[in-house]
Amino acid sequence: MEEKASTAIAGISHDRDSIINLDHGDPTMFEPFWKEIGDSATVVIPGWQKMSYFSDPRNLCWFLEPEFANEARRLHRIVGNAVTDDRHIIVGVGSTQLIHAALFALASTEARQPVDVISAAPYYSMYSGIADFMKSGMFHWAGDAATFNGDDNFIELVCSPNNPDGEIRHAVRGNEAGKRVHDMAYYWPQYTPMRHPADHDIMLFTVSKATGHAGTRIGWALVKDAEVARKMAKFIEMNTIGVSKDSQVRAAKILKVIADGYELPDLEAGSKFFHFGRCLLANRWQRLRQAIKVSGRFSLPQFPSEFCMFFKEQAETYPGFAWLRSEDQTIEDLEVFFKTLNILTRNGRQFGVGPEYVRVSMLDRDANFDVFIKRISSLE
Amino acid sequence: MEEKASTAIAGISHDRDSIINLDHGDPTMFEPFWKEIGDSATVVIPGWQKMSYFSDPRNLCWFLEPEFANEARRLHRIVGNAVTDDRHIIVGVGSTQLIHAALFALASTEARQPVDVISAAPYYSMYSGIADFMKSGMFHWAGDAATFNGDDNFIELVCSPNNPDGEIRHAVRGNEAGKRVHDMAYYWPQYTPMRHPADHDIMLFTVSKATGHAGTRIGWALVKDAEVARKMAKFIEMNTIGVSKDSQVRAAKILKVIADGYELPDLEAGSKFFHFGRCLLANRWQRLRQAIKVSGRFSLPQFPSEFCMFFKEQAETYPGFAWLRSEDQTIEDLEVFFKTLNILTRNGRQFGVGPEYVRVSMLDRDANFDVFIKRISSLE
Repeated sequence: MEEKASTAIAGISHDRDSIINLDHGDPTMFEPFWKEIGDSATVVIPGWQKMSYFSDPRNLCWFLEPEFANEARRLHRIVGNAVTDDRHIIVGVGSTQLIHAALFALASTEARQPVDVISAAPYYSMYSGIADFMKSGMFHWAGDAATFNGDDNFIELVCSPNNPDGEIRHAVRGNEAGKRVHDMAYYWPQYTPMRHPADHDIMLFTVSKATGHAGTRIGWALVKDAEVARKMAKFIEMNTIGVSKDSQVRAAKILKVIADGYELPDLEAGSKFFHFGRCLLANRWQRLRQAIKVSGRFSLPQFPSEFCMFFKEQAETYPGFAWLRSEDQTIEDLEVFFKTLNILTRNGRQFGVGPEYVRVSMLDRDANFDVFIKRISSLE
Repeated sequence: MEEKASTAIAGISHDRDSIINLDHGDPTMFEPFWKEIGDSATVVIPGWQKMSYFSDPRNLCWFLEPEFANEARRLHRIVGNAVTDDRHIIVGVGSTQLIHAALFALASTEARQPVDVISAAPYYSMYSGIADFMKSGMFHWAGDAATFNGDDNFIELVCSPNNPDGEIRHAVRGNEAGKRVHDMAYYWPQYTPMRHPADHDIMLFTVSKATGHAGTRIGWALVKDAEVARKMAKFIEMNTIGVSKDSQVRAAKILKVIADGYELPDLEAGSKFFHFGRCLLANRWQRLRQAIKVSGRFSLPQFPSEFCMFFKEQAETYPGFAWLRSEDQTIEDLEVFFKTLNILTRNGRQFGVGPEYVRVSMLDRDANFDVFIKRISSLE
């Protein structure tokens, strides 16, 4: 991660030769909202508070700050994106740690064979590494769920809306005995219409993509089964002895500000976070689609408008990533092509498909996005 | 962890039947210092700050906040407990994540056989679980370093001062080709005399035991070799995509307050953290040794006084845990015995020795420590 990032530093001046890093999904585009909101989103923690390992010793997730859990449930209720009744909340160091925890919990520690971990291509580029990098005897990466022909001993990772392509996904191996983890990092109103509250066994969310606070490293899982939840908490205990209290306190404050923006009637219009996010993404997607159309060299996924239960109107889909495909026979490797424009993107091969695809972050700061559009638009 | 903790909640009233949990080393005894210090240790983070994944893209540890690294180096310099020149700092979610990261970095990903992970008994109770719980093909727990008879393909975990018994440790397999990780969580002046700045290849520290902020979940490694440091950072990227910025900012503030207490001459005496910690621990150890002496049923390790380079005087050793041994033939399992007193401790078996030993936290709040002493003192 660091090599690409370090070269991007040079890009601050945005001259023709600056390198623009749109490889990762760093959600810095949301910064202006939080600047505008001001002090109400500021977190203050005195030196003597939150010193203990324990947040709530009665909870099976004993390191979960109750105020964070309360605000997460409240925001889900307001947004209508997930059922939280009768669910355990497990907090993690981003949703990344929770993917590890879910694999650990679902893979039986007694199994002789490692469980196959699968996901339909194009799948999130980190899934294969997460499954394989510790060379665990409990599970291993088995590739594209669509072509998987193993037995029932599998875990399917279902990312919806999907990273990289923004599609609403359902489990490919829907009627079988395998286990599923629903990664719902992008199921928020700025990215996609809210169709109904999702109701799966394990659902993962993260403040990184919900609010833009990636550096806070807070994710949460909504988990139906107590035994699975307990094993996930056990993983986090063995991995990191819990999760930063400071970050949970901050995340609680951030979620509260968003919820207050919709529930407290006397706040001004500028305090509606999902409106801000959708508006900014709509503008970016319009500019990107226009630039792509003019260039004629690439294509993008198309999404039908759908009724959004949150905005209470027909709404468009504005994914956090542009999943670009080369339509130019002279461009075989789109990542390499964009590198010649000093734009760093992520190669389709990392998502289990071909190099004619790249994933481009739509979530970076305005200045970087502007350079990206400018360079695409100036292609001959 | 949660079962024992939840029963301890009942202990707040400290009546005769209350359960006192001294099983884990929750360092809440330091809270009064931070209350006394007041606002100067308060952290304030506006909603729009620290949103990015990246702290310092030029650093191989791209998620390390420079202000945290600076304050860690500064405090090591003031205390004189570790060499920091020409070392890479890798920040982790507590030192627990850094133990995982170090094992990952040192175990060759190409090795056909898992590397043996060893530590001299009594060893920290989490080491075996950390090595084994993911059933990694890269490394596995091989037990007591003193009786280990494998080949050179090993990693020795050296905890010094040792958890549970407070001993200053050196690598048991000192002259061999294996690799070493020095866990120095307790090498701070409140616990033990500062003999000289430690100078090992990989040294682990944590704010949890240095300052009492366990809930902040911040540890750091001082690493000599760039390639090892890079692999440790890679582990943390794959495991959690970095470490909470909020916690790093808070930890930097906390370390700064301690350093200022010694470097700014106009601060009052109450601002000297290590003096506070040593004084409180000295009082507790004196009371414990007296109670143990009167009861005649247990013994404790003895430590010679040594010259402390930090306090500039002869100083005693006051470990963060009491490592109690039964000297009463009728008590075979000391953990079970203490359970009859409603005191939760950790069994010697978890540290690779017999049940005639238990580890008892010396770091809990005054009220709980008082009950512990009272119950030992009232034994018939």
